[in-house]
Amino acid sequence: MTDKPKGRILLSITGFNPRRWHELLSARRDVVLEPDGPADPSIEYAVVWKQRPNLLATLPNLKAIFSIGAGVDHLFADPGLPDVPIVRVVAENLTQYMVEYVCWRVLDHHRQGALYRAQQKRKVWHEPPQAPADQVSVGIMGLGQLGGAAANALIALGYRVNGWTRTPKTVDGVTTFSGNDGLSDFLAATDILVVLLPLTPGTTGIVDYALLSKLRRDNAIGGAVLINAGRGKLQKDADIVRALDDGMLKEASLDVFETEPLPRTSAIWTHPKVFVTPHAAATSDPAHLAPPMLDQMDAFDRGEPLRNLVDRKAGY
Amino acid sequence: MTDKPKGRILLSITGFNPRRWHELLSARRDVVLEPDGPADPSIEYAVVWKQRPNLLATLPNLKAIFSIGAGVDHLFADPGLPDVPIVRVVAENLTQYMVEYVCWRVLDHHRQGALYRAQQKRKVWHEPPQAPADQVSVGIMGLGQLGGAAANALIALGYRVNGWTRTPKTVDGVTTFSGNDGLSDFLAATDILVVLLPLTPGTTGIVDYALLSKLRRDNAIGGAVLINAGRGKLQKDADIVRALDDGMLKEASLDVFETEPLPRTSAIWTHPKVFVTPHAAATSDPAHLAPPMLDQMDAFDRGEPLRNLVDRKAGY
Repeated sequence: MTDKPKGRILLSITGFNPRRWHELLSARRDVVLEPDGPADPSIEYAVVWKQRPNLLATLPNLKAIFSIGAGVDHLFADPGLPDVPIVRVVAENLTQYMVEYVCWRVLDHHRQGALYRAQQKRKVWHEPPQAPADQVSVGIMGLGQLGGAAANALIALGYRVNGWTRTPKTVDGVTTFSGNDGLSDFLAATDILVVLLPLTPGTTGIVDYALLSKLRRDNAIGGAVLINAGRGKLQKDADIVRALDDGMLKEASLDVFETEPLPRTSAIWTHPKVFVTPHAAATSDPAHLAPPMLDQMDAFDRGEPLRNLVDRKAGY
Repeated sequence: MTDKPKGRILLSITGFNPRRWHELLSARRDVVLEPDGPADPSIEYAVVWKQRPNLLATLPNLKAIFSIGAGVDHLFADPGLPDVPIVRVVAENLTQYMVEYVCWRVLDHHRQGALYRAQQKRKVWHEPPQAPADQVSVGIMGLGQLGGAAANALIALGYRVNGWTRTPKTVDGVTTFSGNDGLSDFLAATDILVVLLPLTPGTTGIVDYALLSKLRRDNAIGGAVLINAGRGKLQKDADIVRALDDGMLKEASLDVFETEPLPRTSAIWTHPKVFVTPHAAATSDPAHLAPPMLDQMDAFDRGEPLRNLVDRKAGY
């Protein structure tokens, strides 16, 4: 903590307390929450989560933006987003958490957790029919870092795994489908849908009633299941409730929602067929994420390239 | 179904309806539920689950006994158990189900399913601290077919895995302990205890208050957890309730109980920290188990040896 003769970091976070990030980043660079004036030349890096719009636009020496979280849609909501490289967070830890979450939720639906909890309440000793994993198809939308790792873990557990991506992609052991043309076939072969897509203009609201109604319902687990651990705006909350109520969906596990925190007035909170977590599937532990970010800044200062860059054109 | 010129099968089941087994075995051999007289010479094989005591003792031509279920303690409760080979059921399917159950329950405790369900009831949007799997030690008592497969699956999910066996045993990636001498060290290094031991005079009641109080409670998941998917008589139900009530245990998933079905008067049914399933962790789907049994009978008739024999002396 002696001298930190490096460009300063602007930390711009909305929605949660920046204290922990401030503490961790400060160990190696000066960190500020607000620029010193409208054209602060001392700030060379920004670390952001839903940054205040147009805040970054005025910084003359900004060299790169680091996104907290794997998704970067929150960044593109800023109309004054400067034209500098954007680095997404890629942490082994984050992938690990997501794999745990997906396997946990797939197993809980497949192994009838809700039914057993209801039986226990009534002291009912009854063993319902139970299909083994190899009779259950899990379909993953999005086969990036997270979707690919989840696919491998599900295959190891014995599930049949399908995958859907925007452009054709091959993953060992996964039956893949792609594009608009492949979507219906993918859904018709899927019992449990896991959504891990990036949020782009092309995927916003993709998980709607029409999509959910194409899932395979006549299957070994007695209905179709939705698990969304990607982004809330990929889905239409009201369409999910409708699909649950009319039987298109049997159950759902939702970690993300159109509006977060999920409003207290939402029918999802109390829906008996939904399991809710508060955008906590893959927690971003700052203690794991901050040091590699600082390493990347140091490397970039030395002239080395940045890794895990966001494709601005594709939007993820 | 033309001619079945083979020794008949005696099917002796208590506790559940034998109809399905009768149907499946009858496809290839004559099956009876009662011997034709006290010394029925036509019966050469018995397929049993908790057979009626002394029923098998009088059969002069009994060549082998096939146990439904991986555990065979139910057989040894018969004082008139004939001295013929005993074959245990070993089905890939059964192992698959058990691996699913163990991973499901470990994930639900580790990822705080009970807390999230309670939060959802109160519409609480709150992300508690969450350790990744590599900070959680799962300890498996019993590293046979089922315990070994569960260990591998948990390792693949990222957990640290300990194992305890009666006699020393080595399993890749598992830190193993053995015998009475190794038990305390095993427990002190275990956050989530998974019991998959065979039931023998030496293991009856082994999961008692003294054992549970030696588990590691000062850990990354806020307490010690018990998962019993082995046999109910391995545990003392009242000791588990006591350990839950005084904080030695944080939570438990129990698939088996001292008395089954679990009596309606048991405190376990309504205990908020226990998840109950009705001896359904690894369901024995007769459609998967009956054909290999019939194959073994045919092979034995041809003079080939039986596989998966029970060690009568060890009791499992």
